[in-house]
Amino acid sequence: MTLISQNKMHGGTQAVHEHYSPACNCDMRLGVFTPEGAKSAPVLIFLSGLTCTEQNFITKAGAQKLAAKLGMIIIAPDTSPRGDNVPDDEGYDFGKGAGFYLNATQKPWADHFQMESYIRDELPAWIAANIPAADINRMGISGHSMGGHGALTLHLKNPDLFKTCSAFSPIIAPSQVPWGQKAFTGYLGTDMTTWSAYDSCALVKNMSSSAHILIDQGSEDQFLSEQLRSHLFQTACELGGQELTLRMQPGYDHSYYFIASFIDDHLRWHADRL
Amino acid sequence: MTLISQNKMHGGTQAVHEHYSPACNCDMRLGVFTPEGAKSAPVLIFLSGLTCTEQNFITKAGAQKLAAKLGMIIIAPDTSPRGDNVPDDEGYDFGKGAGFYLNATQKPWADHFQMESYIRDELPAWIAANIPAADINRMGISGHSMGGHGALTLHLKNPDLFKTCSAFSPIIAPSQVPWGQKAFTGYLGTDMTTWSAYDSCALVKNMSSSAHILIDQGSEDQFLSEQLRSHLFQTACELGGQELTLRMQPGYDHSYYFIASFIDDHLRWHADRL
Repeated sequence: MTLISQNKMHGGTQAVHEHYSPACNCDMRLGVFTPEGAKSAPVLIFLSGLTCTEQNFITKAGAQKLAAKLGMIIIAPDTSPRGDNVPDDEGYDFGKGAGFYLNATQKPWADHFQMESYIRDELPAWIAANIPAADINRMGISGHSMGGHGALTLHLKNPDLFKTCSAFSPIIAPSQVPWGQKAFTGYLGTDMTTWSAYDSCALVKNMSSSAHILIDQGSEDQFLSEQLRSHLFQTACELGGQELTLRMQPGYDHSYYFIASFIDDHLRWHADRL
Repeated sequence: MTLISQNKMHGGTQAVHEHYSPACNCDMRLGVFTPEGAKSAPVLIFLSGLTCTEQNFITKAGAQKLAAKLGMIIIAPDTSPRGDNVPDDEGYDFGKGAGFYLNATQKPWADHFQMESYIRDELPAWIAANIPAADINRMGISGHSMGGHGALTLHLKNPDLFKTCSAFSPIIAPSQVPWGQKAFTGYLGTDMTTWSAYDSCALVKNMSSSAHILIDQGSEDQFLSEQLRSHLFQTACELGGQELTLRMQPGYDHSYYFIASFIDDHLRWHADRL
């Protein structure tokens, strides 16, 4: 593993590391914020959205101040495999920067786009081996947009691993919206029966967790009506018996300004439950 | 004036505007954060450093949360004139992104690089005309690195306009360090007697203000020994009778992670005195 950068912040350390991922068959970067003096600290994984790298959350969300106070480690992975050998697409919403936190089965994507395995299997093992202050038995997951989709699906399928879950403006029904349909067709193929394993609305009906999920959604989000449609998840949670708090935040949009406005609530949500 | 972007944040509004500057003879952008319900609100101008635009502070510093609570407006100007007609230099430390908050006298820079006039004369007038919630009789100034140099010099020369002053890692003796010597030679020429009007260490010996100045400086700042040399300003303030609190922050570097770690202290510093 390589240390890419390390900056003191709020008494703790904001680092960026690079390490080889066998699942993605390339080097992956991730941000790690460690509060000063942290020991057996809870861990929050934050998954970013389309076009993002590990940089967006660590530079724009302003999460570190409260994380330092709460004694919480925050891990911010990249959103896809990277490098010259990794295939890409012209669109901002497919290929690099758009891994959708799934395991691709279609060529040429399957050789690298194994983000579900990376986040679920490799990342916790890497944290356990390399971040001695972390207690991976107290790990939660959150994310934004495509990363909110990742957080919800990874939590619902692995509630004992990612014990708490929250999301900002998540893609909750990818099978029913253009972003998800494009990505799933490309990564998983046209057999839609394979899609439901990565669709929060489909999953929650049969795989609700005992955790209470928090979602913040801006009412003025430009993607709300076409790509996000958060009310569908509310209905699905009611059907599946999943406890959900969905907060519609009036006037807020899809940007990191929105995330920064409510990230402290999410940190406390996870800290109180881990 | 043109509205470039507007995002709700912490209950208030983070906007970016563009307006024509006669002094700089080009369009200039600036960030404006206005807390919800602000009326007759104090104003903090934050000047960014080399290579920055109006974006860096508004996306990375995390100042809006406390500003919203304090009811403080924050104005984040760009660091130089911009546009195809504006001359530039290959270096990151001269030309676009490196206006040094002075009025250039040398060709070809003098036609556009009039940042002192822009910040001192045009910006307060623009705020008064366009931000009705602002009370420009309660205006403070702060900045980072080159912007710290701008904040200190503009405050010392205009203490009744910019009534309070603080800085992060400021260039306090530009006449004595490579960044300043390159910029001043290019913008002001080789007659060093013209440089002292833009050198905080020179100014403060004869133009100390009645304000108490706050400076935060990271001990691990990679530019400390060659470009910043903050101890020189401490000595100059003692000679000039200027009240100064210079805090050496152990372990911190020159980045926005450092600014984000202490920006709340600066906001309170200004709010308490305005």
